Amino acid sequence: MKSYRKELWFQIPGLRGIVNITPEVNDCLRESGIREGLCLVNAMNITASVFINDDEPGLHQDYDDWLEQLAPHEPLSHYRHNRTGEDNGDAHLKRTIMGREVVVAVTNGKLDFGTWEQIFYYEFDGLRRKHVLVKIIGE
Amino acid sequence: MKSYRKELWFQIPGLRGIVNITPEVNDCLRESGIREGLCLVNAMNITASVFINDDEPGLHQDYDDWLEQLAPHEPLSHYRHNRTGEDNGDAHLKRTIMGREVVVAVTNGKLDFGTWEQIFYYEFDGLRRKHVLVKIIGE
Amino acid sequence: MKSYRKELWFQIPGLRGIVNITPEVNDCLRESGIREGLCLVNAMNITASVFINDDEPGLHQDYDDWLEQLAPHEPLSHYRHNRTGEDNGDAHLKRTIMGREVVVAVTNGKLDFGTWEQIFYYEFDGLRRKHVLVKIIGE
Repeated sequence: MKSYRKELWFQIPGLRGIVNITPEVNDCLRESGIREGLCLVNAMNITASVFINDDEPGLHQDYDDWLEQLAPHEPLSHYRHNRTGEDNGDAHLKRTIMGREVVVAVTNGKLDFGTWEQIFYYEFDGLRRKHVLVKIIGE
Repeated sequence: MKSYRKELWFQIPGLRGIVNITPEVNDCLRESGIREGLCLVNAMNITASVFINDDEPGLHQDYDDWLEQLAPHEPLSHYRHNRTGEDNGDAHLKRTIMGREVVVAVTNGKLDFGTWEQIFYYEFDGLRRKHVLVKIIGE
Repeated sequence: MKSYRKELWFQIPGLRGIVNITPEVNDCLRESGIREGLCLVNAMNITASVFINDDEPGLHQDYDDWLEQLAPHEPLSHYRHNRTGEDNGDAHLKRTIMGREVVVAVTNGKLDFGTWEQIFYYEFDGLRRKHVLVKIIGE
């Protein structure tokens, strides 16, 4: 069994933002030399998500509006977590809806994706350096 | 390390519907000959989910009512994604709540499940052919 | 390839409750002797979750308030599932938001975590014995 590990780093120039990280994960897979196995991609920070969906800007705006409705950023006082001095109570909840991680099959040396599947990093508490882990195991 | 891959195909005769795919995944596991490992089951389309819960029709109706409340299908104009000519903006959000994938332990050649765990395909944009990936790795 | 399996058991003294299970999962990993691989931790009951976030009591209370708003426990008659004699219709929905499972990378014999990542068991239908599966594969 082979294993491969890499961290991807991001600094989003706003509170929230979505980045297509499929090319970076493809690079990792190529570098790993693994042909058959599983690829885990997870946020290492707890106010960010990794998710799989369509690379369509309207949809990304829909996600943002919807999450802001389900867990609004303000009033900050709405979240007990913000009493610790943070202002990211909402970010922890938004990240929970979108998920921490994805697991992708590796087949014949490729991410085994349906036509429209792309991997995204979703930042909910930006303006600082955050990281994502790519771990691939297989042969 | 062994690996196994199979696609399961569905065409749901309505906009939404839930199908118990545990028997098909069990067949895959048997075919794979894998005794110890991990089994990934994921939707390959981005308007469908794979999830694990109880095979109880009342609960399935509860899911449907709840998701329709969290991300209503109409008005279609509510979703920017629908400006692309699609009418499935809600389906992308519903699928996000229910999840893209499950990872199940394989122990002694069986899906290592609690008493009530069953795997379901959940279609949110039916009336067309969609697919699910089963990938198993182990020994 | 090595594999390891253990069940963790809980009885939460209330309807809902969150338990940090990171120490138990660390013990499993040590016991497994696995240095590189993947660690799956999943609820084996369908009214409980395993999730990764911050060990901050204010945040945990925020989760609880938020889930109770998204899928209130009462009125019990709101859920078709409760017509089967159960009173846990809400618990199935809450567990869906928080997730069934996490997959964690294993690197150099450790859970490969960001600074604040911790694994929690989240009970939504307590006062009875429930279990969590830890399955680790790798080398």
